[in-house]
Amino acid sequence: MKIGIVGGTGDIGEGMALRLSPIFDVIVGSRDTDKAEATCKLGIETLKTRGKACSLKGVSNQEAIDAADIVVLAIPFKHLAGTLDGLHGFEDKIVISPVNPMEKRDHFVFVPPQEGSAALMIKRILPPSARICSAFNTIAANKWKALDEELLYSVPVCGDDDGAKQEVMGIVNRISRLQAFDAGPLAVSSMVEALTPLLLNIARYNKIRDVGIQFR
Amino acid sequence: MKIGIVGGTGDIGEGMALRLSPIFDVIVGSRDTDKAEATCKLGIETLKTRGKACSLKGVSNQEAIDAADIVVLAIPFKHLAGTLDGLHGFEDKIVISPVNPMEKRDHFVFVPPQEGSAALMIKRILPPSARICSAFNTIAANKWKALDEELLYSVPVCGDDDGAKQEVMGIVNRISRLQAFDAGPLAVSSMVEALTPLLLNIARYNKIRDVGIQFR
Repeated sequence: MKIGIVGGTGDIGEGMALRLSPIFDVIVGSRDTDKAEATCKLGIETLKTRGKACSLKGVSNQEAIDAADIVVLAIPFKHLAGTLDGLHGFEDKIVISPVNPMEKRDHFVFVPPQEGSAALMIKRILPPSARICSAFNTIAANKWKALDEELLYSVPVCGDDDGAKQEVMGIVNRISRLQAFDAGPLAVSSMVEALTPLLLNIARYNKIRDVGIQFR
Repeated sequence: MKIGIVGGTGDIGEGMALRLSPIFDVIVGSRDTDKAEATCKLGIETLKTRGKACSLKGVSNQEAIDAADIVVLAIPFKHLAGTLDGLHGFEDKIVISPVNPMEKRDHFVFVPPQEGSAALMIKRILPPSARICSAFNTIAANKWKALDEELLYSVPVCGDDDGAKQEVMGIVNRISRLQAFDAGPLAVSSMVEALTPLLLNIARYNKIRDVGIQFR
């Protein structure tokens, strides 16, 4: 299975590539192809020192979409619409949104677009045949990158296409000790995306780092 | 410390009274004083069979407020404004809101009032000296009542009055194995209240019961 990461050289994307590439074929996309190649070279070395083979290749964002079966949009919310505007080829692909629309004011605030969530905005922008799911919203970049730590977290997955959602949940469940939970239709993504600013507030006000969640 | 539970004969309130009354003086309020008395009589017997002494007394909602240092508003959101309308005496008291404004449609939906959250609505309605915190939002009624089970959950606590928030966190941490987390100012309560419909969706779509959360 080929997973393309749009924004794969960003904080989240880079960590996801490290965790995913020993399991899946990962294509890291970036606005800057040189940066994507450098990130992948470094990633391959990092994994090699841990005795892990991987499949990791750096290309442009568009090439990552074209080559992939499943596309992860690892883009900060503020760049989301602009980035999608310059890309195409999402027809019939599974598209995963880990995007959280939020701002840091006095505290972290959930600031959804008028569609209600980033995932619903993506649904409006992309062609109707794109199979959009939200997932991985609450996993911190530092945790993706901390390869010596297991990811002992729950991952709510939302989507209107049941087949796509099952496939995404299968991917989640193969990564470290993540456990996927079906959170319902894509409309529920607003509640999932609101979790991340809450976790950032919990981290801040309790002086702990990189807080995640488990359902139990 | 005297804790008054407004709506103490409802699903959540009854369970809270059972968990709190072996530790604190609990005054159960209800629109129907006879019902409050009956609930307390049953609660005392239930706890007695478990060898637990308790302090539990059934009165009217107004008497519960008047007698308490800390008031818990264990009221469904749809009855919140109407119930508060007929009550007074909240001045200078700590008021805890476990209220979640939500509706069951195709799935569970977070439907906040125009203030942004139930806790912020309570703040608008009550006198300015009331020290409002949100807490206990995500603990299911069944779990409150399941006295043979430990409550192994995290409890985010929001509030603008730091002293009140610390006091509420201290109460949380004395109940079973609940762990309080400072979630920041009362404005963060919108993100906390949105968690409960998310958890109900998780429960529904994964066919599990009474899902709670742990931060980690």
